[in-house]
Amino acid sequence: MNDQPTLDQLSINTLRFLAADAVQKAKSGHPGTPMGAAPLAYTLWQRFLKHNPRNPAWPDRDRFVLSPGHASMLLYGLLHLTGYDLPLEELRSFRQWGSKTPGHPEYGETPGVEMTTGPLGQGFAHAVGMAVAERWLAEHYNRPGHAIIDHHTYALVSDGDLQEGVASEAASLAGTLKLGKLIFLYDDNDIQIEGSTDLAFAENVARRFDAYGWQVLGPIDGNDLGAVEAAIRQAQADAARPSLIVCKTVIGFGSPEQGTAKVHGEPLGDASLRAAKGVLDWPLEPAFYVPDVVKAHMGQAVARGRIAEEDWQEQFAAYAAAYPDEAAELVGQLRGDLPADWDAGLVDLFPAGTPLMASRESSGKVLNALVQRVHALTGGSADLAPSTKTHLAGYGDFGWDEYCGHNMHFGVREHAMGAIVNGMALHGGLIPYSATFLQFADYMRPPMRLAALMGIRALYVFTHDSIGLGEDGPTHQPVEHLLSLRAIPNLTVIRPADARETAEAWRAALLNRGGPTALIFSRQALPLLSDDDGQQAKGLQRGAYILWQSGASQPQVILIGSGSETQFALAAGKQLATGGVSVRVVSMPSWELFDRQPAEYRESVLPTEVRARVAVEAALKLGWERYVGLDGAVVGMDGFGASAPANVLYEKFGITAEAVAAAARKLIAQE
Amino acid sequence: MNDQPTLDQLSINTLRFLAADAVQKAKSGHPGTPMGAAPLAYTLWQRFLKHNPRNPAWPDRDRFVLSPGHASMLLYGLLHLTGYDLPLEELRSFRQWGSKTPGHPEYGETPGVEMTTGPLGQGFAHAVGMAVAERWLAEHYNRPGHAIIDHHTYALVSDGDLQEGVASEAASLAGTLKLGKLIFLYDDNDIQIEGSTDLAFAENVARRFDAYGWQVLGPIDGNDLGAVEAAIRQAQADAARPSLIVCKTVIGFGSPEQGTAKVHGEPLGDASLRAAKGVLDWPLEPAFYVPDVVKAHMGQAVARGRIAEEDWQEQFAAYAAAYPDEAAELVGQLRGDLPADWDAGLVDLFPAGTPLMASRESSGKVLNALVQRVHALTGGSADLAPSTKTHLAGYGDFGWDEYCGHNMHFGVREHAMGAIVNGMALHGGLIPYSATFLQFADYMRPPMRLAALMGIRALYVFTHDSIGLGEDGPTHQPVEHLLSLRAIPNLTVIRPADARETAEAWRAALLNRGGPTALIFSRQALPLLSDDDGQQAKGLQRGAYILWQSGASQPQVILIGSGSETQFALAAGKQLATGGVSVRVVSMPSWELFDRQPAEYRESVLPTEVRARVAVEAALKLGWERYVGLDGAVVGMDGFGASAPANVLYEKFGITAEAVAAAARKLIAQE
Repeated sequence: MNDQPTLDQLSINTLRFLAADAVQKAKSGHPGTPMGAAPLAYTLWQRFLKHNPRNPAWPDRDRFVLSPGHASMLLYGLLHLTGYDLPLEELRSFRQWGSKTPGHPEYGETPGVEMTTGPLGQGFAHAVGMAVAERWLAEHYNRPGHAIIDHHTYALVSDGDLQEGVASEAASLAGTLKLGKLIFLYDDNDIQIEGSTDLAFAENVARRFDAYGWQVLGPIDGNDLGAVEAAIRQAQADAARPSLIVCKTVIGFGSPEQGTAKVHGEPLGDASLRAAKGVLDWPLEPAFYVPDVVKAHMGQAVARGRIAEEDWQEQFAAYAAAYPDEAAELVGQLRGDLPADWDAGLVDLFPAGTPLMASRESSGKVLNALVQRVHALTGGSADLAPSTKTHLAGYGDFGWDEYCGHNMHFGVREHAMGAIVNGMALHGGLIPYSATFLQFADYMRPPMRLAALMGIRALYVFTHDSIGLGEDGPTHQPVEHLLSLRAIPNLTVIRPADARETAEAWRAALLNRGGPTALIFSRQALPLLSDDDGQQAKGLQRGAYILWQSGASQPQVILIGSGSETQFALAAGKQLATGGVSVRVVSMPSWELFDRQPAEYRESVLPTEVRARVAVEAALKLGWERYVGLDGAVVGMDGFGASAPANVLYEKFGITAEAVAAAARKLIAQE
Repeated sequence: MNDQPTLDQLSINTLRFLAADAVQKAKSGHPGTPMGAAPLAYTLWQRFLKHNPRNPAWPDRDRFVLSPGHASMLLYGLLHLTGYDLPLEELRSFRQWGSKTPGHPEYGETPGVEMTTGPLGQGFAHAVGMAVAERWLAEHYNRPGHAIIDHHTYALVSDGDLQEGVASEAASLAGTLKLGKLIFLYDDNDIQIEGSTDLAFAENVARRFDAYGWQVLGPIDGNDLGAVEAAIRQAQADAARPSLIVCKTVIGFGSPEQGTAKVHGEPLGDASLRAAKGVLDWPLEPAFYVPDVVKAHMGQAVARGRIAEEDWQEQFAAYAAAYPDEAAELVGQLRGDLPADWDAGLVDLFPAGTPLMASRESSGKVLNALVQRVHALTGGSADLAPSTKTHLAGYGDFGWDEYCGHNMHFGVREHAMGAIVNGMALHGGLIPYSATFLQFADYMRPPMRLAALMGIRALYVFTHDSIGLGEDGPTHQPVEHLLSLRAIPNLTVIRPADARETAEAWRAALLNRGGPTALIFSRQALPLLSDDDGQQAKGLQRGAYILWQSGASQPQVILIGSGSETQFALAAGKQLATGGVSVRVVSMPSWELFDRQPAEYRESVLPTEVRARVAVEAALKLGWERYVGLDGAVVGMDGFGASAPANVLYEKFGITAEAVAAAARKLIAQE
């Protein structure tokens, strides 16, 4: 193959050695996969990928996800050579502070990077979400003769990706949903870090994906560009099944240690790098060599991309002329805008006299009100919609016979659900949400963290948020989950205290465009805590606010509650006031929102000099020291819950208004 | 089938209505699966299961796992009827405070419950670990003519279990490992909570498991006991493949709403319950009815079990006579004992003059020293052994050609790894460990939480524990993971500061029999912090200890560090002391161990009146308020990391000895 170096081969070798040189210079990184998979990525990018390097935000571009994020240099090479704003100097600064070329691709850091990858399996599952969004938007907005949304979602996936459960979950759902425009190139190189894949991965991958309802193509020789091209064409031709193209490749192709784990995760070293360049007829110097012919050849992507987008803009103009309302709505959705008056009427959902209502229930009402105006709102549950109250009544089920449905059925697959919701958000055009019990947030932490790192608007609904769920017992009762979610940077966690705060929580979530939001709701019924027709609950937007106080003076004690326990703080406050104590009750639905307020506001709610502070939450006490310090008290859990009716559990674990009042009295007595 | 009620049918209907009555009485629970799957469970328990109800701890019993834990009443019925110490009164107290019949089965709460289930997929994956342990022990200890360890591992698994990624991961590995004594009955009832499984689960499950290398049997009619029996025999006959028996069942069998999601998760209601009893010729009263013939019939399990164990005891006596050393060692392992002098020499591994060494590196040395004496120590990594340094040199690879190997290769399957390690611990006879990067702890939280809830000795090694891993960047740099692990009740988290503390951390982990331990190690090299030949590092067993102080008087300021940043606290302390400040440096490798100490000890380390406290950790500041309060300071991270060499990151994020000293000076100045 290398006897007659063609332009193709020169381009592929350029990709290989940009990667190997960058890893060598950084003294860290992963040369093996870029060297092995370069022919796959090259063929896809050069012969198929619809993109405009000068406008990475073009909505109808094909999406490409590099699921094995450790092969980042392959992507950086492609982006550089096809004309994205990623100069060679950035590739020379691979993995250095302030560069656009971090160790793993990061969304928002590098133009053309569609998502942050690195934790294996995530790219696979997020790509499924992108394909869902494409299908949804196409179904809603395309019109006969106007295929405005019509692109593929491609990914390169590795052995490691296919071993991760999240990929299995997403693959099964993608097959069920018949996402025919999803095309994955499987870099099947038989090697993982501990050695041969036979050690831990003897399964028949092709047969497995066939079982999921995928079209499986290959195995083909990944170095045979014609075979790769033919397979991609065949994949495109099947509109009813996602496709997995099994490509046999050689990790570290060209290196003396090719085909071994040795070339996976460290620089080749001078000797091997030189040897590889020798084998592939590559000049030893300079490093980061890009032949002019390759630059010209792969740089054609700029012109192709410009023309492609111009064509699309023309199509869109015709569409907008024929369907002005749809076009305007689509543009707004793609921008992520909220329509005018999107939140009108929310405040009126829960007038005085609203009966006791679980916050999952009030959430369901808010959600169903919101979707009337916010067309982009789409989501579903991991097989718990009747319990999480997240079904959008009258909005259909997204599936093979109705792709315009707003209700997703994720199956019992929390992990993939998180990733798919993220992928939908990344695609743009949707405001997606997931839903499950708070307990199962543990199953979906990796994608939640990625969403936080990427800063995308993904919404995660978690109901059944404490021992308040009762009889299902400690396997289903979260105690540590609130803290462990609050610990994820840039994830906003909101646990409203009543129906009105619930409406405000949804408002906050939709307004939070810079990161994901976790919405935490109760299973059990809750009273309205404010009596002012909902104005007070707007304090939720600041994270914490004074819900009630006994008088105007500086309080002797501050009681702080979140969610379903705020009612206990309030009752305890009134009880203490009756006893002559000067008391303030603070509703604190969100640590993150509160911590983002100016110091003056925070001081106005929690004055430094008032150290008698009691927090109450039906969750671990740990963490509340942030607000009550070494001198305060927390009424909460010390360990796991138990199986019994909720009211029994609150009594047995001592999470009551009486306990709050007693803790407050004790603190006051100590002062 | 019900025209001629046989003893079998009477028994099955007893199981069905014990469940339906209990759910009805509790006003909460899941009648559908017990009613549908009762024939499967009955056939297995009555005709196959090797167990001794009067000794649930018999080591060579078959293991049975109810993966859909919400069907708990099916298991409670079986345990009651086969003679376990679970009186009918307990079934009447289903889901009530203090009963032995919690909403989901809980290990340690109810005799005969092999593990806690409820979160779907976990039972499936834990059972794989039990089968691993059986195979390992059999290979190590059985001798020709002495099959001392020789039992099956059975599980009932549901649609939901099979949708979860953790089950996919475990299934693939079980196939690779050819665990022929693993037999799963798949309760294939076509229904999940949101409706038909077609909504989200159109895959061909049988073909998928075939692809994993399983023997797939059926589909059979789950109500046809003969078919179930024949399939189990066929499963037993294949020694080289795990078996999945696909059993078509009808959820809520007998109820008017049978075969619908309606019967899944709530009481049938009076009318339907009466109707079901009518359909199945069951007396309407009394509730919890157990016919005497059923009692006698299923109660035969007691005699069968006694004889089975007596036979085994005889066999074991013969084995012990022939192989006294092996027998003694096996008995000790099964008891979970540590051998005499198991920790001898650990303290000498790192004498004065030990070079700079990453704690992952010193951990590898400790682990390899320990396995010489602690034969039960067995584990492995999710394809990161070369990086986590967890390979046991010379101890073989557990796999199809060598089942006595101590090294497990889990593949890139962190979630199943956690579950399998737990299953190994639950089986008994092994002290299992897992290993991956701390970042990927997020993938395995559900099994870690279960281990903590169950109180089992599972060890989780996490390396690459901070920005100190450098160039791999924020996708791989944990910042919130320490706190989110510390948040899990009964999980002990230990982050040692140097090689000696690392040895002590392993000691603490092995000594902790009441729960799991997470061992947190650095990628980067660390100096020895003590200069006394390792006596001081024993302070680790108390969680935190005074590492150094400038004088005998009450300190003006206390500096607290964990792991790789303790060196910064120490350097800052010496710097401050040089400037005349009275300072104490506390090494705090484990919050949990420290919090378990008597108040006097805690006060002696962190005196209440010293409020100038600075904590330093290359992780989120959040949480350290527990020890530094509202008046202290934390030197740590506020958000995600970045991709650059480690030393650059420590500087850029301001986590240095200088920053610690500056924070201390500021606090002192404020006082």
